[in-house]
Amino acid sequence: MSSSCPLPITSTDRILLGHGSGGKLTAELIEKLVVPMLANPALSRLDDHALVEHAGTRLAFTTDSYVVSPIFFPGGDIGELAVNGTINDLACGGARPLALSLAFILEEGTPIADLQRVLASVQRAAKRANVPIVTGDTKVVERGHADQIFINTSGIGVTHFALGSEHVRPGDAILLSGPIGDHGVAIMAHRSGLDLGDLVSDTAPLHELSAALLETSEVHAMRDPTRGGVAATLVEIATRRKLGIEVDEATIPVRDVVRGACELLGLDPLLVANEGKLVAFVPEAHADRALATMRAFDPLAARIGVVTDRHPEVVELITPVRGRRLLDLPFAEPLPRIC
Amino acid sequence: MSSSCPLPITSTDRILLGHGSGGKLTAELIEKLVVPMLANPALSRLDDHALVEHAGTRLAFTTDSYVVSPIFFPGGDIGELAVNGTINDLACGGARPLALSLAFILEEGTPIADLQRVLASVQRAAKRANVPIVTGDTKVVERGHADQIFINTSGIGVTHFALGSEHVRPGDAILLSGPIGDHGVAIMAHRSGLDLGDLVSDTAPLHELSAALLETSEVHAMRDPTRGGVAATLVEIATRRKLGIEVDEATIPVRDVVRGACELLGLDPLLVANEGKLVAFVPEAHADRALATMRAFDPLAARIGVVTDRHPEVVELITPVRGRRLLDLPFAEPLPRIC
Repeated sequence: MSSSCPLPITSTDRILLGHGSGGKLTAELIEKLVVPMLANPALSRLDDHALVEHAGTRLAFTTDSYVVSPIFFPGGDIGELAVNGTINDLACGGARPLALSLAFILEEGTPIADLQRVLASVQRAAKRANVPIVTGDTKVVERGHADQIFINTSGIGVTHFALGSEHVRPGDAILLSGPIGDHGVAIMAHRSGLDLGDLVSDTAPLHELSAALLETSEVHAMRDPTRGGVAATLVEIATRRKLGIEVDEATIPVRDVVRGACELLGLDPLLVANEGKLVAFVPEAHADRALATMRAFDPLAARIGVVTDRHPEVVELITPVRGRRLLDLPFAEPLPRIC
Repeated sequence: MSSSCPLPITSTDRILLGHGSGGKLTAELIEKLVVPMLANPALSRLDDHALVEHAGTRLAFTTDSYVVSPIFFPGGDIGELAVNGTINDLACGGARPLALSLAFILEEGTPIADLQRVLASVQRAAKRANVPIVTGDTKVVERGHADQIFINTSGIGVTHFALGSEHVRPGDAILLSGPIGDHGVAIMAHRSGLDLGDLVSDTAPLHELSAALLETSEVHAMRDPTRGGVAATLVEIATRRKLGIEVDEATIPVRDVVRGACELLGLDPLLVANEGKLVAFVPEAHADRALATMRAFDPLAARIGVVTDRHPEVVELITPVRGRRLLDLPFAEPLPRIC
């Protein structure tokens, strides 16, 4: 079976690691199995946050489970990741976070000291973002039935903006808030025993950047390119909106150490998870202003491409030698448990 | 160490199964480690739902992870449990559920057919309660690093009531909405290969019962007695409110089959998890009306006790022979992964 041919959900009768990778298998599991079964308009938007209208207030609601391995990694840990990740899903919906929930699944035998360290990190991240953790849950399973610590965080926020992939239009500039691949490569290198010196995860909250962007510019959609990397974000939007995307590869900021490690590990930086970066789809007239706002947060922010009505559902990468290649998602990208 | 002596959090340096049991170890982990670290007023209420005020609206927000084993059991499965359980936490806060999130952690190798069956059950439960699942997440971990399917559901609702343990007062009648122990005993019997005929889990949504109670009567607090059973609910409220509770054991409805199985399995029905029952604390003047409302849903609903300012922090059980015994939580109750 060719990897470009959509899989029937029955192509495999067991859950594979790839179903969690952010690649095609994940998309197919969600779009063919989960969404049709639970269909409702909010879920079917398939953005990282849902909108719930109540009494004139537009609430954003999001959830993510974190199973990153190892739970402590260069630049962060699962606790910080779980807080930042859920804040970022709200931020990408233009929402101001109101409150988070925190649910642990703990493996019997996990050192209490590890849990304390993770909690301290949750506390710091929540304080940094000024978002209270208002409710929680703790479950424990037998040794060998989980892997140390799994966390789910859900978040509610309030938004006055209508943002989302459905607002992306031909002509929109695509902006990227900083260099890519730091999170995934830091973790993969750590797992492989590779010493990358100062390279650490980019885990960070994006709500201030997102608020600044919305204050200065019109924005059609924002996404944080986590599992599946920038490639998954672009392919998803192109596919869902039946629009084309052109990306100038030379403009994509990638640190040398990340590029080098990717060559060594056989990874494409475009497919590697980020945990503190944002991709914005902005009308051309607002692109310069939005980019200037991004650069006040990170001087490496860049304009990387444009949305087009040519070649619908295709993401084209213009290579440094002005060649063109199609950017596609792998069947299952090779980075399990990156978040 | 005596089981009635509060444990310092350092009494064990590893997570034990009992930390997830709903017994003393769970209470100590939450109250000594988690809450002090993340302290904020909403979290410190320690009810099963948090209240978040925004723009004149009082939102209820709750989260629960489900790790029940096996995932399919007599009368239900993990999917239905995850929907009903989170709806019930909202219902006990007097909240009308607005939306749920659904996050899976899947073990590599889990049959897709099992996931489909669980999803179908999620769908049915959500439809029955008329609550949309608006956002979700799917992670996959390697074989042997989880146990088939774990689910987190979080929920948001809106409430016009101020309910919670802080409103419980001396003189409040304690009402129980039906017979106890069905869920825990059905699962334990299934695990033990014991055939209990028609006994099935009582998993069910409580939002209609809760709405009916609030419509007809003044209610101070409601709780669904899940992990740790009715005992955990009563001990928690007595301890937190520094009030006494007196319960007339003969009035507590327990099916014969549950009582028999408990004797066989060495369990106390008061400590066994329920997934479709509600304990209400109601001012005396409203007790008869509230009980009549409960009985319209289940004729076995009963008035089981009273809150008192005598013997603070002590739950006294008046036995059928008019003796008295103290009801206390076990150090760690013996039913792991019951929800």
